[in-house]
Amino acid sequence: MTEFFSRLKEEIETKDSVVCVGLDPVPSRIPDDVSVREFNQLIIEATSDVAAAYKPNAAFYESLDPVEGGNGWDVLLETVEEAGFHAPVILDAKRGDIGNSSRRYAELLDVADAITVNPYMGRDSLEPFLERGDSGVFVLCKTTNSGSSDIQDLECDGRPLYHHVAEKAVEWNTHGNVGLVVGATHPEAMEELRETSGDLPWLVPGVGAQGGDEEAAVEHGTDSSGVGLVNSTRGIIYSGDGEARFDSAAREAAKKLQSSLNRYR
Amino acid sequence: MTEFFSRLKEEIETKDSVVCVGLDPVPSRIPDDVSVREFNQLIIEATSDVAAAYKPNAAFYESLDPVEGGNGWDVLLETVEEAGFHAPVILDAKRGDIGNSSRRYAELLDVADAITVNPYMGRDSLEPFLERGDSGVFVLCKTTNSGSSDIQDLECDGRPLYHHVAEKAVEWNTHGNVGLVVGATHPEAMEELRETSGDLPWLVPGVGAQGGDEEAAVEHGTDSSGVGLVNSTRGIIYSGDGEARFDSAAREAAKKLQSSLNRYR
Repeated sequence: MTEFFSRLKEEIETKDSVVCVGLDPVPSRIPDDVSVREFNQLIIEATSDVAAAYKPNAAFYESLDPVEGGNGWDVLLETVEEAGFHAPVILDAKRGDIGNSSRRYAELLDVADAITVNPYMGRDSLEPFLERGDSGVFVLCKTTNSGSSDIQDLECDGRPLYHHVAEKAVEWNTHGNVGLVVGATHPEAMEELRETSGDLPWLVPGVGAQGGDEEAAVEHGTDSSGVGLVNSTRGIIYSGDGEARFDSAAREAAKKLQSSLNRYR
Repeated sequence: MTEFFSRLKEEIETKDSVVCVGLDPVPSRIPDDVSVREFNQLIIEATSDVAAAYKPNAAFYESLDPVEGGNGWDVLLETVEEAGFHAPVILDAKRGDIGNSSRRYAELLDVADAITVNPYMGRDSLEPFLERGDSGVFVLCKTTNSGSSDIQDLECDGRPLYHHVAEKAVEWNTHGNVGLVVGATHPEAMEELRETSGDLPWLVPGVGAQGGDEEAAVEHGTDSSGVGLVNSTRGIIYSGDGEARFDSAAREAAKKLQSSLNRYR
């Protein structure tokens, strides 16, 4: 097991939690007198004993207007650093490009502990990530959105495309650092996919605001040693919408999800 | 035809060129006394009457160390602005995420005129880009790298997956602003793909350093009104490797590619 998954296993066991907290700051949903930096910091502090991992999505930082003495990219780097004091950090970047460019994107792993990647361009496009054996690489497989059926469900050789992606991911896992992203919004698909994907740990988004199946997420999302993550973002960080005490609301929501998921572990 | 493709058509006709100049700065390949900002600016000025479009790849900016009084993201924004004075700018970002996050990535189109996107997550993941009718959206279809066969060539219903992606892209083109990314390194596949992809304009990378087929790139890559782009990056911007006059070398390389491609238009 690679360094990333070893650390994650320890974190899951110590905190007795498979909760991953998404950090997607939307300025309009943050109290006026709180900066994005402070918001993230307070959320991280409030959830630090429940979060087995943090997952900032790069989209929410790239688009931040240049405020607060820097731009969104600076805020992302600071958030990753801050979160990293408390749990492993997965940068949800969904990157993938040809070798030359992917090598540059892989430098994001100098900062974060793991990253999400898009498999469409194939193995060599992911090699710069895969070869960083200490880091985790979560390959998009079956995503939560309804449009995921457009391409991912296309039938190839009698099975949906995403099954082929899972098989490729198993094949690409020569460093023991590969996981899959599988949405909790497709519980019927998860059981079969667990067969195809061997013992790869999954990162399962889609519970909470997106209404995914928590039982299936835990049952199929964790590997034989109990490693896997169930992510909630809006259901945690915006649970105190409009309230000044958004951080204690986030803590409560995270604790509630932890208990709820632990029933199935 | 959407605003982006109208402007591109005009640019192609005025400059008599389908050359797209990639702007992927690698600090180690830039003379010591030249900043990335200056490098890009000099390349842009030197190629401005030949470049029908510019294509900076976001990977090369996200990873730039914080130097020159800002970080790579600032340099990207400045480069897009500078290039935009001379030709339409396609941000090669290969993004795609669920609606919520994709909406944030789509804000990149506040800056650039067009963007490249990854189709794996399906139509709703691209909708925030597609619905910006004035902007161009180039969907990855068949990429230049050898690993593109891993997923893109999987046989679905008797045809490679990338043909299905091309058909979806045609279906998604309700605003007339969709194009495809098709690598010039697969000349045998391009003829058939032109049939499947209707009259969508293509952005064709892979000539130059990657050795793609220029004739096939022009013949199949342009639509019935002559709109389409053939990109070269390293073959242009690093043609003067080690020379102080990298800009005039880039100009020569771009002019040479222009002539070479114009034989087939």
